[in-house]
Amino acid sequence: MKQPLVECVPNFSEGREETTLLAIEVALTSVAGVMLLGREADVDHNRSVFTIAGPPLAVKEAAIRAVGVAAERIDLSRQQGEHPRIGAADVVPFVPVRDIALAACAELAWEAGAEIWSRFGVPVYFYEAAAKIAGRERLENVRRGHFEGLRDELLLSAERAPDLGHGQLHPTAGATVVGARKLLIAYNINLDTDKLEIAKAIAKTIRASSGGLPHVKAMGVMLHSRGQAQVSMNLTDFEVTPIHVVFAAVEREALRYGVRVANSELIGFIPRAAVEMGFASALRFEGLKRESVLENALDAKMES
Amino acid sequence: MKQPLVECVPNFSEGREETTLLAIEVALTSVAGVMLLGREADVDHNRSVFTIAGPPLAVKEAAIRAVGVAAERIDLSRQQGEHPRIGAADVVPFVPVRDIALAACAELAWEAGAEIWSRFGVPVYFYEAAAKIAGRERLENVRRGHFEGLRDELLLSAERAPDLGHGQLHPTAGATVVGARKLLIAYNINLDTDKLEIAKAIAKTIRASSGGLPHVKAMGVMLHSRGQAQVSMNLTDFEVTPIHVVFAAVEREALRYGVRVANSELIGFIPRAAVEMGFASALRFEGLKRESVLENALDAKMES
Repeated sequence: MKQPLVECVPNFSEGREETTLLAIEVALTSVAGVMLLGREADVDHNRSVFTIAGPPLAVKEAAIRAVGVAAERIDLSRQQGEHPRIGAADVVPFVPVRDIALAACAELAWEAGAEIWSRFGVPVYFYEAAAKIAGRERLENVRRGHFEGLRDELLLSAERAPDLGHGQLHPTAGATVVGARKLLIAYNINLDTDKLEIAKAIAKTIRASSGGLPHVKAMGVMLHSRGQAQVSMNLTDFEVTPIHVVFAAVEREALRYGVRVANSELIGFIPRAAVEMGFASALRFEGLKRESVLENALDAKMES
Repeated sequence: MKQPLVECVPNFSEGREETTLLAIEVALTSVAGVMLLGREADVDHNRSVFTIAGPPLAVKEAAIRAVGVAAERIDLSRQQGEHPRIGAADVVPFVPVRDIALAACAELAWEAGAEIWSRFGVPVYFYEAAAKIAGRERLENVRRGHFEGLRDELLLSAERAPDLGHGQLHPTAGATVVGARKLLIAYNINLDTDKLEIAKAIAKTIRASSGGLPHVKAMGVMLHSRGQAQVSMNLTDFEVTPIHVVFAAVEREALRYGVRVANSELIGFIPRAAVEMGFASALRFEGLKRESVLENALDAKMES
């Protein structure tokens, strides 16, 4: 039997207080069937990102509970950090992993949002595939002005009022942006050069926003400790623009500057399908079947 | 909880009679937990190969039963075909897939062999990792002379007597070669040329037997229907010589003749680890962790 599997990657505006992080973690793992896959906290950004996965309803309930804990413990009117944010629990995306559609994850987001507002009085915006208001697909639009700016703006105008709520932000917990999106691959390529401008030029050439590869966000950053320039990317639809295509594009562009790729690195996870697509391309398999991978064949047999 | 998983790839000296193939298939799937992953029958070779997988004891019992069916239905004194063989059930290798050592598969082979002899009176040779007599590691040594030659030789000398039995072959079922080996990748690379001698030269350069890559068997063959020469290979230890290393070697050698690789193809299965190693190499990941693949992380969590 197919068992739908959903990932959720909630972001919280706290990256320093271990007791708060622990309380969030306890909430996220308080629902049977939910697996905690990752937890990253950044002191400078004062922000933490958790990755959980499991059956849809279990993941939804875990995320709701964690938003409640964050709203109780994080006071945005006092919080400071480098990272843009409008909520104690800032962003809660639901991501389809297996045997569930993106649209079903949008429904999960709407249900979770309704609970967040009714249980905790935290207003909710819906974004990406769960956006209900045009323009709110993009997180940067929803979060413009950050907590302080948005709070003040809402006192004057209802235009940017939350999807759920009474038109204002919660005084300490702000608002939570809940949504559904495809699985994202956070992928960096390190160049064999200390020239940041080369990484920046490559990033500009390949990113979607300047007419490059669809569903690729890219910027150039400097890794001072290694003396390497890096093309830092988010691949937001690896089925349309596979990771190996991105690698080849960066490698080709770098060569135009006489620079070689030093290595690749991943932040977080890569879906198995992306690995299989990249392998098949590298060894020039024509249409390698997923069931040609022994473990895939076994999994398929066990599920049937 | 870790669940050991074993593959078994029994070869039978029958590739034409569907009723016999069906009877073998029924025997192989008559044990709960055993999954039939593949069945290939070749009319010219008059031979069939089945692939099953499952928990060790279940797979062992399924293999034993299928040997019994083959011994009852296949008469080697009348069977003819292109392929070398000494038994109705000719070769029965047990292969570790997950959470089981090769040595444990050798033990399975010894237990299966004992049952084959005691239940059906079919003598047994042990080969590869289950060999008990020096020189019997290699299947070609065990099978030398084929059914007819070995049968006659055993009337004169006990040197090549089966590991289990009364020193002679079964008059119609011959003997079964039972063993344990690592997972094998049957891998072909098709060249953009119709010159068979180039494929043969490349095969000779890269194969282990002529000082090439360890654990690689290779030969050049002509695909007349496609007008392509092919380097046809068995990779008998993909952890020592990974598939992507073999691809790179063939590609490099082909280029020395001015020939390009057309594409790759797989016969049967490839283990997931080989796919991940190839992907990591192609995109120059340094030590990509298996848990960086989302589904691997989930599987690890579910097992713990």
